[in-house]
Amino acid sequence: MVVGILGGGQLARMLALAGLPLGLRFRSLDPSPEAVAGHVGELVVGAYDDPRALQQLVRDAQLVTFEFENVPVAAVRWLQDHVAVAPGPEALAVGQDRVLEKQLFASLGMAVPAWQPAASRAELLAAVRTVGTPCIVKTRRLGYDGRGQVRFAAGPILDSAIDAAWQELAADAARGGLIVESFVPFDRELSVLAARSRAGEVAIYPLVENLHQGGILRRSRAPAPDVPPAIVATAHQFVRAVAERLDYTGVLAIELFLCGDRLLANEMAPRVHNSGHWTIEGSVCSQFENHLRAVLGLPLGSTAMAGGGVATMVNLIGALPERDALLGLPGVHVHAYGKASRAGRKLGHATVVGADRVAVDALAARVGELPAAPSGDWNFVG
Amino acid sequence: MVVGILGGGQLARMLALAGLPLGLRFRSLDPSPEAVAGHVGELVVGAYDDPRALQQLVRDAQLVTFEFENVPVAAVRWLQDHVAVAPGPEALAVGQDRVLEKQLFASLGMAVPAWQPAASRAELLAAVRTVGTPCIVKTRRLGYDGRGQVRFAAGPILDSAIDAAWQELAADAARGGLIVESFVPFDRELSVLAARSRAGEVAIYPLVENLHQGGILRRSRAPAPDVPPAIVATAHQFVRAVAERLDYTGVLAIELFLCGDRLLANEMAPRVHNSGHWTIEGSVCSQFENHLRAVLGLPLGSTAMAGGGVATMVNLIGALPERDALLGLPGVHVHAYGKASRAGRKLGHATVVGADRVAVDALAARVGELPAAPSGDWNFVG
Repeated sequence: MVVGILGGGQLARMLALAGLPLGLRFRSLDPSPEAVAGHVGELVVGAYDDPRALQQLVRDAQLVTFEFENVPVAAVRWLQDHVAVAPGPEALAVGQDRVLEKQLFASLGMAVPAWQPAASRAELLAAVRTVGTPCIVKTRRLGYDGRGQVRFAAGPILDSAIDAAWQELAADAARGGLIVESFVPFDRELSVLAARSRAGEVAIYPLVENLHQGGILRRSRAPAPDVPPAIVATAHQFVRAVAERLDYTGVLAIELFLCGDRLLANEMAPRVHNSGHWTIEGSVCSQFENHLRAVLGLPLGSTAMAGGGVATMVNLIGALPERDALLGLPGVHVHAYGKASRAGRKLGHATVVGADRVAVDALAARVGELPAAPSGDWNFVG
Repeated sequence: MVVGILGGGQLARMLALAGLPLGLRFRSLDPSPEAVAGHVGELVVGAYDDPRALQQLVRDAQLVTFEFENVPVAAVRWLQDHVAVAPGPEALAVGQDRVLEKQLFASLGMAVPAWQPAASRAELLAAVRTVGTPCIVKTRRLGYDGRGQVRFAAGPILDSAIDAAWQELAADAARGGLIVESFVPFDRELSVLAARSRAGEVAIYPLVENLHQGGILRRSRAPAPDVPPAIVATAHQFVRAVAERLDYTGVLAIELFLCGDRLLANEMAPRVHNSGHWTIEGSVCSQFENHLRAVLGLPLGSTAMAGGGVATMVNLIGALPERDALLGLPGVHVHAYGKASRAGRKLGHATVVGADRVAVDALAARVGELPAAPSGDWNFVG
């Protein structure tokens, strides 16, 4: 059985690594001939809306799913006419647009940070005034890992700051609009991941605590330590409500802010998510396997913790650590994606599992302290 | 970094699935265009001693290793002249020949079942007389999964039985000789697997208890329950002694018989081994990853139990179980190799890990009780 994936990066690669033991085969569509999903299956190189590339993707494929949500709507429509597609177009549309996301969350009674849309300089000024400072201006669409964002510090709103923000984001505003979000003084960033099957069965992973720096996820810990049961219950309600409203199929991630005893929904991803990579070793059934089980109509696997009950994942960004030093840390599970080094690029991750939170975190911290690998140490092409 | 593998079956496939997250890429050489390692890397189709195929295999590969040991010596010699090869030729030569194996074991003070070589009908008769009945006649070379074996029941040795055995095995005898082995009335079958690094570091997995039927492994349990510490220590001595004598690099498996309080060495495999498949979920670092770490000169991973401390693996032979029934058993890790069904063929395995031996075995037993999948249920080509 061939599964098609729009996108050929590390998420597609890990989907394939999880699906091959189920007897599945994979074909990815990606604009880059270097896309790393090509290491574990067929790679179709082309634009996401290139009809010939799409045709090649669906040939003998029984289903197409997504590595990321920012694919052209026209491409999704074309796919739907030719093959089973999951998750569905509504979930993708919401996942592509921060305004639709916020509206969906609000309609489900989920608390969200104050926000306002903006499509012009005047609207931007008004929106920043309404939301108040500190706040963040983001693109409505295609925002990814901290790109296309401008922050306004606490204090008075200067015209020059509005000008500067507008200059940076005007092109984005013209393409799809902007959104101004209150900069929430959160205590912690959390995320909740769930798999929902075709039949509507929902399996929720333990809550995750995330640490971002520079807009990029650095570390995830599961289960998120010391979260009151009421907050966990609210997170579960959130992900279940969104999944049910969208009649969602697959793995769904919602990023959350914990502010005192309030849980706010930040954004969702209609796909497997970086904050769920720890599930490969830390869960009975990983997010990757469960996404495939869900979209293919197979029984969901267990989302219970495995490996001792505690997991910490560290992203490897920009450069991998020295190879022998990393592999020499006993109990560290290494995932190198086979990508060439580049500043800010996610090149891999490492996961530690165990029974003791302090020991697991201490070992994970050692990963972060390793020196960067010299060029050629991991010997990747590129 | 490209790793070449001689052989493209499920062992090569699982080596690749373990090595891809280390940033490795794989190329297998196999006579069959259907070889399943082609799902996770490049597949060179050709005979093991075809110079053009070997040339293709080693192109830009930094190392060649083996999925199985029965490769022509000439091919190994050719490879050694062109690329790093591990494990070494002496280990392969011993692994290919039951007589060399027994001699090696004996020279290291390891107890072995009584045995005699035989190359003619007269020698066969003499060997059966010396060894006594019950006994098994095997080919010295290329024996695999119960093929090429004839048994003599307890009791007097009939000329007609010798005739029948000779008729069946004469061609094998002409190729490489036969060996007659005493049929050991063992209490249990065990195996011990170890990884030895280039630097001579040895990491030993917990002892495994195996159940064979019809010469094919059906079930493995680790750690082998209720084995006295002295027996465990002897098994460790065995595998360490063999690995050191052969200056071995990679994962090495030795199959053992436990007879009362005596541990006998039956045979060795200079490669990853079916009785170590449970290590994927049941160990911190699987036999597949540790084999790659060893042959590439990387630090070895931990061979400690993970996943609760107890593991049971069940082979899926001849036909896979009903797909949804199998995937619907919570906590069962499914490994379908993507091979077409055929009587007696290893099509996959399933592993259960946990903390409770009785519960783990009960769940594993349910896998064995599932009805066979109807044709097309797993939807493989072939």
